[in-house]
Amino acid sequence: MAQVGIVGGTGYTGVELLRLLARHPNVDIKVITSRGNAGSRVDEMFPSLRGRLDIAFSEPDLEALADCDLVFFATPNGTAMQMVPELLEAGTRVVDLGADFRLKDLATWSEWYGMEHACPSQVEEAVYGLPELHREAIRGARLVANPGCYPTAVALGWLPLLEQGLIAPESLIADCKSGVSGAGRKAQVHTLLCEANENFKAYGASGHRHLPEIRQTLETVLGREATLVFVPHLVPMTRGMQATLYGRLVEQGVDLQRLYEQRYANEPFVDVLPPGSHPETRTVRGTNLCRVAVHQPQGGETVLVLSVIDNLSKGAASQAVQNMNLMLGLEEAAGLDDIAVLP
Amino acid sequence: MAQVGIVGGTGYTGVELLRLLARHPNVDIKVITSRGNAGSRVDEMFPSLRGRLDIAFSEPDLEALADCDLVFFATPNGTAMQMVPELLEAGTRVVDLGADFRLKDLATWSEWYGMEHACPSQVEEAVYGLPELHREAIRGARLVANPGCYPTAVALGWLPLLEQGLIAPESLIADCKSGVSGAGRKAQVHTLLCEANENFKAYGASGHRHLPEIRQTLETVLGREATLVFVPHLVPMTRGMQATLYGRLVEQGVDLQRLYEQRYANEPFVDVLPPGSHPETRTVRGTNLCRVAVHQPQGGETVLVLSVIDNLSKGAASQAVQNMNLMLGLEEAAGLDDIAVLP
Amino acid sequence: MAQVGIVGGTGYTGVELLRLLARHPNVDIKVITSRGNAGSRVDEMFPSLRGRLDIAFSEPDLEALADCDLVFFATPNGTAMQMVPELLEAGTRVVDLGADFRLKDLATWSEWYGMEHACPSQVEEAVYGLPELHREAIRGARLVANPGCYPTAVALGWLPLLEQGLIAPESLIADCKSGVSGAGRKAQVHTLLCEANENFKAYGASGHRHLPEIRQTLETVLGREATLVFVPHLVPMTRGMQATLYGRLVEQGVDLQRLYEQRYANEPFVDVLPPGSHPETRTVRGTNLCRVAVHQPQGGETVLVLSVIDNLSKGAASQAVQNMNLMLGLEEAAGLDDIAVLP
Amino acid sequence: MAQVGIVGGTGYTGVELLRLLARHPNVDIKVITSRGNAGSRVDEMFPSLRGRLDIAFSEPDLEALADCDLVFFATPNGTAMQMVPELLEAGTRVVDLGADFRLKDLATWSEWYGMEHACPSQVEEAVYGLPELHREAIRGARLVANPGCYPTAVALGWLPLLEQGLIAPESLIADCKSGVSGAGRKAQVHTLLCEANENFKAYGASGHRHLPEIRQTLETVLGREATLVFVPHLVPMTRGMQATLYGRLVEQGVDLQRLYEQRYANEPFVDVLPPGSHPETRTVRGTNLCRVAVHQPQGGETVLVLSVIDNLSKGAASQAVQNMNLMLGLEEAAGLDDIAVLP
Repeated sequence: MAQVGIVGGTGYTGVELLRLLARHPNVDIKVITSRGNAGSRVDEMFPSLRGRLDIAFSEPDLEALADCDLVFFATPNGTAMQMVPELLEAGTRVVDLGADFRLKDLATWSEWYGMEHACPSQVEEAVYGLPELHREAIRGARLVANPGCYPTAVALGWLPLLEQGLIAPESLIADCKSGVSGAGRKAQVHTLLCEANENFKAYGASGHRHLPEIRQTLETVLGREATLVFVPHLVPMTRGMQATLYGRLVEQGVDLQRLYEQRYANEPFVDVLPPGSHPETRTVRGTNLCRVAVHQPQGGETVLVLSVIDNLSKGAASQAVQNMNLMLGLEEAAGLDDIAVLP
Repeated sequence: MAQVGIVGGTGYTGVELLRLLARHPNVDIKVITSRGNAGSRVDEMFPSLRGRLDIAFSEPDLEALADCDLVFFATPNGTAMQMVPELLEAGTRVVDLGADFRLKDLATWSEWYGMEHACPSQVEEAVYGLPELHREAIRGARLVANPGCYPTAVALGWLPLLEQGLIAPESLIADCKSGVSGAGRKAQVHTLLCEANENFKAYGASGHRHLPEIRQTLETVLGREATLVFVPHLVPMTRGMQATLYGRLVEQGVDLQRLYEQRYANEPFVDVLPPGSHPETRTVRGTNLCRVAVHQPQGGETVLVLSVIDNLSKGAASQAVQNMNLMLGLEEAAGLDDIAVLP
Repeated sequence: MAQVGIVGGTGYTGVELLRLLARHPNVDIKVITSRGNAGSRVDEMFPSLRGRLDIAFSEPDLEALADCDLVFFATPNGTAMQMVPELLEAGTRVVDLGADFRLKDLATWSEWYGMEHACPSQVEEAVYGLPELHREAIRGARLVANPGCYPTAVALGWLPLLEQGLIAPESLIADCKSGVSGAGRKAQVHTLLCEANENFKAYGASGHRHLPEIRQTLETVLGREATLVFVPHLVPMTRGMQATLYGRLVEQGVDLQRLYEQRYANEPFVDVLPPGSHPETRTVRGTNLCRVAVHQPQGGETVLVLSVIDNLSKGAASQAVQNMNLMLGLEEAAGLDDIAVLP
Repeated sequence: MAQVGIVGGTGYTGVELLRLLARHPNVDIKVITSRGNAGSRVDEMFPSLRGRLDIAFSEPDLEALADCDLVFFATPNGTAMQMVPELLEAGTRVVDLGADFRLKDLATWSEWYGMEHACPSQVEEAVYGLPELHREAIRGARLVANPGCYPTAVALGWLPLLEQGLIAPESLIADCKSGVSGAGRKAQVHTLLCEANENFKAYGASGHRHLPEIRQTLETVLGREATLVFVPHLVPMTRGMQATLYGRLVEQGVDLQRLYEQRYANEPFVDVLPPGSHPETRTVRGTNLCRVAVHQPQGGETVLVLSVIDNLSKGAASQAVQNMNLMLGLEEAAGLDDIAVLP
């Protein structure tokens, strides 16, 4: 059994990671840290884990973490970068579920996250943990930057078209919708049930931190600059994310359905739906799946892609486990065989 | 007091109409028909009306309806057109909340609604009931086709840009989201709480009946053909609708905020939010308001408009009351002064 | 027009009060105070009020408040009692929506609210603002203690039985359920959408502040001691409250339905449903109504009463307006004619 | 691998059974029947099963079912009893998730289910499938009547007190709350999202089919007659059930916490919470767990028990799997190790 640690496991990403790891056949959770909750049992905070996880939060302790084979950071942005270099030094591999190592361009990172980066060379080393794009690099990586939720849904929705150069890079539109859990388990007013329930709204229309991350992926695949309009919306539900993607086809007559099916034929966690389908977020809830459908409305020049994931799973914790599996040489799908609870 | 009738008041549009009319200072509900529920009291079906509406459903009866000053049809498509000619003949004015008189092109209507039209000349006569566009014609109309919910949200969102010719008509995208009440009060599986709750999905991506209606309005205003991609989505909430509208600006440097504020300065039911705002559907719930915000993400060439309404109110029943007010020479805002119940 | 002031209008009770008063035909909101938000417009915090309320929050200022005919306190417990004596002195009437003046027994009050009371003689003077029980006293009152939400739902459910001495006072059970808005508009974790949504739980089973308040009302009516088990539960919805009340009948053969109908025949805001009914919270949402049904399951000796209110309306703000109407000699139902928005 | 069949797998109980069995380590789903959907793939109706279950619905066929080791009936009441005798004859074991074999008293059964029973001797033979009460009998049973959801939550909540004779059998009150999925996946109006959402109500207060079933269990354990008031309520959420149980203690001074902990010490699926706890339905969602807390409010003579389950899991499908495991000699917890997805 591999030994893993978690830094900062009191948020929604943390509890989802705990759920997955508590049942994972090949790993043991050796340490889970939380400055604010050190000493209290994990299952007191999350009673869903009663009887399944016999561990308490502890103070962050580099030595204990360095004893692990792999450490997950489920911490606020700017935290992981303070500890990662020492852990890597000690031979511990790291998956950061935050944004510290996602953007290769440090100036862009500083602009959006409002601080200087603490370890530029680790940024360079880090592999962007989207297995469908960088599987081999992830296998060998010491440090993986786990993608953001929107960037995952958008990238998987557009990959086949981008790789084949089939959409115009200067007019991409990603109209995205997320459940409220994306905002985290923080005491704040705007995500109270009474504020978010029975309500729908856009947010961050003038700029969202996931915009440069999405653009970086698009440009990596395209090999050129892309212009993207990205508008996130808040959906009155706990989990689930949809990217509704609009692009202008530069070539007519391509069998888009076949393109998607072939591209993802061997991907265990991307499911291309039959023609004419509309994926539902609830069918991927609590799973590592991305379900995708491709449309060409009225046979026009716009290609429409509908891509759904669970923002806390494939958009965070289960993708982190998939990355861990690859990094530790385990079965890629180990511990990721949940079927969405429906209804 | 004007006497009004309602044909088919057992759906969600019907009960919203009843709520508004029961409190309206200038009208009395004289007759409400329902084939299936004739004889039973309205407040048995809708206990929210107990003590406020002392009336029972009756069999549809042309004579009783013809005695009314104005009749609302809140019926399935294809019903109103069977009765409207005779009512008009009898001097009764009509507001149809269904789709029978919305599309001027009969071939298009038949294609989308799957039947022959029963009264083409009334289609020609009917005024499309969007007061912000056709106020004067509505005042004089005998027959008003009350707009669909999506078409209302989209039209009010784009009107200022369309009128000034500021967006390219060949690449319009309307990514729209609706609460579940848009699907009506029908016994069906896919709108059960257990199916629609905690779920998000697109639907009708290959074509929706509101597409030709939206296009007709766009083309009326533009005076030329428009190409529109329209993708509706189902939001896990009862009421509320947002249109997220993307267009390509054909002219830079226009003060879009000012354009919107000036266009709607005298409109009692369109509220242009301050720059940088994101309207919330709950702020218009149960009201006749449309709240709009205009953005230009990253200062690029895409203009983004966020437009919210309550699909059952401004998207149906309260807009019908606004039209009635105009047709009967009443105060346009009479009976429409609700403030959204929040939270 | 009467001039009214509101102290502390930034919570859910506050915004509901603002909605009702903004449309009230006989009053003007002259001042609304909030230490934390002084200077900012009310409609910035609550965009639902845009165009309907042209006022900004101000610092609490005794003089400005004393200029009002009546002041509402929608403040945390312990605040009103600091200002009320001076306001009464100045001839301003007061409705306190908090708990400062609800309990006549000061020791009990201190035990549950954890502080000494600042003005015992005003506690003595205060009238408990349940119009169905104390209408005449409210009319003449300078200071009204607006009842809590649970106490309102429970009292109205049991009044007819208590007044006739028909239930055994030693085994009363109130199993109550509330929407999440009862917990207020505070930044806290346990009422986040992601915590409260799709979840049901009891809370405060070992003791809740409304227990002594309910008991006080029961004992006032009974004229003797009562033993009550009160278990509140949290329902995953924003508004609405149900009290499911169990009592042992001490006399068989009474026509309970008739008893309830007669008791409430002249009450404008209590609606006794037909035999066999189950009231729904949504039918009273945003209204001042309490809907009640009385059952005798299997004809046994337990009488079951189902009582529903909107916790923020009849359970707080609209009952406060009803009290204001009585105190100012206005029509009791003025400004309280909303019909629940349904669905 | 054992071969199992499912009759009638298109409801919510059916899809939950499919989810559990598709991942079960010791069984294969050999046949699943549905008259209305014969020929169509299961994963077309339930896309959450795509890639996990390669099977289509077939016409009910006794021979194919008789080839199975065990058959589940997830059918409307009155269906199983038509087929069970022949299956038992053929040596196939049966778990009926419906109500055909739950009530031992045939007259009572007919009264509540409105038909004559087709196979009285099988009713006599059937074992009531509550493992915590009848584990050994279940192991040897050919036919298990899987308990209803309310009866499961209530029985597990009261078992320790009943077995010790600690509560008065003449004044039991079960105030129960269920998510909407208990009403099934039927096209009907009252469980539409727009009807059930943001609403709370009691139903069936004058009598519910689970009342005689609960009473039968109570009386089995007590060995004497019991008087029960049972009031079910509908909670605006998909899954989850709470029984709030009130009984009068006939003996003071018993350590109730210890009683519960000892009674359930060896039960894998009943979790007694620490003193003062309030179980949350979401912590058992999608699992076979029942979480229980016991209180004695104000130290009075009423004992309050809070018992939560997932109505579709421990209240139906996962309890059926637990029964199957026992009947087939498998590990009792096989395939039942889900941890609730939270949030």
